[in-house]
Amino acid sequence: MLYPNNIKKTYTKINNHANRGMDLEYLLNITNDNYIDKKRAYIYKKPTPIGIVKVNYAKAKIEEAYFQKPSTLDYNGIYKGYYIEFDAKVTQKDYFPLVNVSSHQIEHIRHIYEEKGIVFLLIMIKDEYYVLMGKDFLDFLDNNKRKSIPYSYIKDKGYEIKYNFSKGLDYLEVIDRIIEVDYEKGKIS
Amino acid sequence: MLYPNNIKKTYTKINNHANRGMDLEYLLNITNDNYIDKKRAYIYKKPTPIGIVKVNYAKAKIEEAYFQKPSTLDYNGIYKGYYIEFDAKVTQKDYFPLVNVSSHQIEHIRHIYEEKGIVFLLIMIKDEYYVLMGKDFLDFLDNNKRKSIPYSYIKDKGYEIKYNFSKGLDYLEVIDRIIEVDYEKGKIS
Repeated sequence: MLYPNNIKKTYTKINNHANRGMDLEYLLNITNDNYIDKKRAYIYKKPTPIGIVKVNYAKAKIEEAYFQKPSTLDYNGIYKGYYIEFDAKVTQKDYFPLVNVSSHQIEHIRHIYEEKGIVFLLIMIKDEYYVLMGKDFLDFLDNNKRKSIPYSYIKDKGYEIKYNFSKGLDYLEVIDRIIEVDYEKGKIS
Repeated sequence: MLYPNNIKKTYTKINNHANRGMDLEYLLNITNDNYIDKKRAYIYKKPTPIGIVKVNYAKAKIEEAYFQKPSTLDYNGIYKGYYIEFDAKVTQKDYFPLVNVSSHQIEHIRHIYEEKGIVFLLIMIKDEYYVLMGKDFLDFLDNNKRKSIPYSYIKDKGYEIKYNFSKGLDYLEVIDRIIEVDYEKGKIS
């Protein structure tokens, strides 16, 4: 476990709809720890950015601080020599509201895609998990004026991941297929 | 600027010897912002990990929290398709005390090196700046029982970076040379 329970509790209470978000974060922590144990990949969740206002220096204690919005994606690291970055998103609706991705994050996804990094969203929708690659996410944005991505698009363009008790959410299994098709065979190079 | 001034102040006061550390962090923020502006590289400082103990939910305000030690390096991102990760370290001595790098960080440096990522320490020593590549750092650890790296080793194995008013600390200029010699010519592949 990378995060103490108190953060989990905090986050859940502050974001009303984040209960399932935390479950997904928890699953991904297990998955990533598993990858590290097996020396398969080194992918970590970045700490939540916090703006510090007041510190008690004698006690080295932060007494006033606030959560901030990240402008990059939450998870990044290295896999098979590739740069990899993604964010975990949960929707309770049967579509994916784009308000879940900040404009900074969209710009960042575009940058990483252009630099040939492996970038994607891991979306939990209708109790299913999908990897939606940055390219397909950007394609949607560039060709639609909608404020949400329909489930059908995610199901069609995304890659479903099944939860597995021992492996967690083994998203690298999907990434292996992407690398083989798009990276090693030179579609992206 | 990626970080509000209050964090800068906080950090400086908490760590007695961190004044210059913050100066280095400040220089690197300028450098990295400059890379992003020029679409040269996307390298960010990770937020400082903080353990949250008490939150006022009504105000979404953190009322008790403490700084935590990171187990990865502070900066990571993508450059020319390569995964890149480094940490900025400052010493006021004329050697580099190894206590500045946690055992988790050392293990992490080894992992990233084995995965063919570009990993290094950016060390400020005697008012000079050096890139010490992960390989040379690990070589020292594996062949010495000393608790510090002498200046002569850093000067010999490291690559000096000169501060430049418009570019900041242009460490990618050094990394370009490393990539050409060690990566593209297949020494590391």
